[in-house]
Amino acid sequence: MKTYEALESRFREINHLQHVQAMLFWDEATMMPSGGGPARAEAMAALAGVLHDKQTAPEIGDLLAEADVAGGSLDPWQQANLRQMRRAWRHATALPADLVKESQLAAMTCEQTWRGCRPKQDWATVEPLLERVVSLNLAVAERLAEIEGVTPYDALLDSYEEGLRTDLVETMFDDLRQFLPGFLEQVLERQARDPALPLRGPFPLDRQKRLGAAFIKTLGFDNEHGRVDVSHHPFCGGVPDDTRITTRYYEEDFLPALMASLHETGHALYQQGLPADWRDQPVGEALGMAVHESQSLLMEMQVCRSRPFLDFAAGVVREAFDGDSDDPAWSPDNLYKLYTRVERGLIRVDADEVTYPLHIILRFEIEKKLCTGEMSVGDIPEAWDQGMRELLSLSTADNLRDGCMQDVHWFAGLLGYFPSYTLGALTAAQLFAAARIQIAGLDEQIAAGDFGPLLGWLRANIHGQGRLKSAVQLMRDVTGAELSTEPFKAHLRARYLAD
Amino acid sequence: MKTYEALESRFREINHLQHVQAMLFWDEATMMPSGGGPARAEAMAALAGVLHDKQTAPEIGDLLAEADVAGGSLDPWQQANLRQMRRAWRHATALPADLVKESQLAAMTCEQTWRGCRPKQDWATVEPLLERVVSLNLAVAERLAEIEGVTPYDALLDSYEEGLRTDLVETMFDDLRQFLPGFLEQVLERQARDPALPLRGPFPLDRQKRLGAAFIKTLGFDNEHGRVDVSHHPFCGGVPDDTRITTRYYEEDFLPALMASLHETGHALYQQGLPADWRDQPVGEALGMAVHESQSLLMEMQVCRSRPFLDFAAGVVREAFDGDSDDPAWSPDNLYKLYTRVERGLIRVDADEVTYPLHIILRFEIEKKLCTGEMSVGDIPEAWDQGMRELLSLSTADNLRDGCMQDVHWFAGLLGYFPSYTLGALTAAQLFAAARIQIAGLDEQIAAGDFGPLLGWLRANIHGQGRLKSAVQLMRDVTGAELSTEPFKAHLRARYLAD
Repeated sequence: MKTYEALESRFREINHLQHVQAMLFWDEATMMPSGGGPARAEAMAALAGVLHDKQTAPEIGDLLAEADVAGGSLDPWQQANLRQMRRAWRHATALPADLVKESQLAAMTCEQTWRGCRPKQDWATVEPLLERVVSLNLAVAERLAEIEGVTPYDALLDSYEEGLRTDLVETMFDDLRQFLPGFLEQVLERQARDPALPLRGPFPLDRQKRLGAAFIKTLGFDNEHGRVDVSHHPFCGGVPDDTRITTRYYEEDFLPALMASLHETGHALYQQGLPADWRDQPVGEALGMAVHESQSLLMEMQVCRSRPFLDFAAGVVREAFDGDSDDPAWSPDNLYKLYTRVERGLIRVDADEVTYPLHIILRFEIEKKLCTGEMSVGDIPEAWDQGMRELLSLSTADNLRDGCMQDVHWFAGLLGYFPSYTLGALTAAQLFAAARIQIAGLDEQIAAGDFGPLLGWLRANIHGQGRLKSAVQLMRDVTGAELSTEPFKAHLRARYLAD
Repeated sequence: MKTYEALESRFREINHLQHVQAMLFWDEATMMPSGGGPARAEAMAALAGVLHDKQTAPEIGDLLAEADVAGGSLDPWQQANLRQMRRAWRHATALPADLVKESQLAAMTCEQTWRGCRPKQDWATVEPLLERVVSLNLAVAERLAEIEGVTPYDALLDSYEEGLRTDLVETMFDDLRQFLPGFLEQVLERQARDPALPLRGPFPLDRQKRLGAAFIKTLGFDNEHGRVDVSHHPFCGGVPDDTRITTRYYEEDFLPALMASLHETGHALYQQGLPADWRDQPVGEALGMAVHESQSLLMEMQVCRSRPFLDFAAGVVREAFDGDSDDPAWSPDNLYKLYTRVERGLIRVDADEVTYPLHIILRFEIEKKLCTGEMSVGDIPEAWDQGMRELLSLSTADNLRDGCMQDVHWFAGLLGYFPSYTLGALTAAQLFAAARIQIAGLDEQIAAGDFGPLLGWLRANIHGQGRLKSAVQLMRDVTGAELSTEPFKAHLRARYLAD
């Protein structure tokens, strides 16, 4: 037991330093003036180095070796914690400190450069930096791959969602690739016959802000332990006791900011609901990025774009902008049409839930090939254009800004992250289908603006579970089945093609 | 030379981690939701521990010992850098890691508690926490005192301003204590005969914000490398390449926010102007808190409350609030009267430059006695009331909120800091007197809104000097004399009693 306690104390310190790191990432994206970038990149690299030293302290290895023997007296949470400690140790010790610091510095420098290059479509300037980031990403992947006995790309997938492998992603994505194009055609045809009435702005930013704040609170976000700000790309950061979400506002349309807020609130509820007793231990963290994304998409796509939600929300939204109650454009029916509009577009973050997986499949195919060496960074613009034409019948040949330069991920050194989004969408659909079976009167509660029972169910079944079980086990326990594309497809059919 | 370079590399890493620390302090004061406090305190304590480990790495000791011999080939900046490295090493190694972490944690917890207790005047709750902070502060002071061969209170003074000792503070303060009460009576009498016309609000916050931003920029603040926010107490934080200043707004009066902004801009200009070639080395840091405060007070008191400045600023201020150009209340003369109003008050941060030193003398007397054991934390409320009655003829017996609970410093573990404010005021007066001799046409430039020559002079003589020389040497070089109360008294006489 003493050995285990000594390990907890080590990982507590690591957790505290990760808190520091999380806050500085948030600051960099929301607050930092542009001139602060180079010094910040150095500071973050130094912090990454310190963290790595702490994570690879030989004493942790000694304690873990001792704990093997002493493990018998531990309860299930402690055992799961020990498993996560071992995993963290394996991963950290697989990487030399210099590689960690170099990766951090290269990624932050590349990301900062990308921000300036994207508006100008200046691929040439950022390309060599991206090459370096990808090659460092691969150096990390190869080392992790060796330890885990998997391919480098699997090692990257695994680093974001424990146990995730390429073949599972391919199985899911192949199925979606079969299903979506035909389905999309049907939806577009149907929606063309039944257009939504447009809502005309401007929608003053302060009112958008107040409206967003009201919904965020209604869904269950704890403002005592978090805050909402503006950033270029909406995200959820910070730590469970201080959860930071962001959105961005457009005066001509209130929907993007509102939906981004509701999406990030889903992440935030997960983060704030992680097991309080395990706050500063590995087992108290989120299960993985696919599960994290499932929580944002469950809130945004399953709940907040549903017909029952709009019965509750339409009046609130209309009043926020002094809309005329006799204007049919503000009716729940019409808002539902607006909220579920499907369209082929260039931008992933603006995509609806039908086309979104196609954006992800494109990125998955490219990053997989970057990892096997079948493709190099210089090939990305052409491969992107070709993929967009195949999957979404759109070209980005002369529009790199809205093509391969649109997403921060690769520039920030996050290869292997993209599949989480679509696995999250599948997970969300499957979890919400289970919730509708298990929570009596869920649709009526949502229509009445009562999110308490749903949040209670999420807290008990997902948020409060931390990393006690694997994602696969969690899905089995909560939904009675392995992850599949069926609930997602059923959801899309019911929402977009049912009468 | 290799030894020296190895030292630079060590101190570069320490500097990067101090960057991290500075940003989290800023976040805690401006952004953090209240519920994030306990986790943040733990994270900051962990970071303080890491930093302390880095600062006390035995390798630094070995390198410093070697550098003794190799020092001959270093240029003056490198020699000064080495001196500062030695000082940092002496101070860090004097303190055990546990004491550093405990102090950090106790101070942050006490400060967070104080924020809640102050509005309720709940001294009883915060008193035991303050006792702990003071006793940890003293434990630190005693260890530093032993190393430096001084008294514990001198060790605290020295930690904020190298070389500062109680006897110098006492000499200055005794003189002010002689001078100020009589002078204050004369000023009050004179101002009573010549009242200022009041300016009536409300002054909308967005206009105050725009006005402040315009002045901050005009004075020379670099927005590419900094930002302005709101906090409970105005301060300047961050790092040279990312300088964060704060202010606070009141709708009924624009003067406090504006003056706080101009004051913090003085700090910010110093920070942004530190020698760029020495960004991440000890010699590139600010000289000390008294010199830092001299830069804010030079800007606020010497420049921005002067008659020439108001010739420039009155029109800008009037237009910002759509004031009537025929209204004599908006005239430079009347604004000057408003900007130089003197009044006995309870609150240090609201005090004018005549009464301010009396607030500091009160705190100096108390904290000195806390350090010798002549007084304990429990005695503070009564001692405060007694001191206020003696120095300012005001009682705080039933008003602890505006009495001994008004300032964050002691609760945050900053014993020994207060004298910096008044030494800064003396330094500012002496420096500005020198600037007026050395910069031809300074008053006319200020009246024309041209702050370039003054900023250039400050950059060359103070900001860009970093820690190359001692504060004493700097004053000699720039003003031709040691620090004295004379220029400050001359300034007060000229501003408040001249015809």
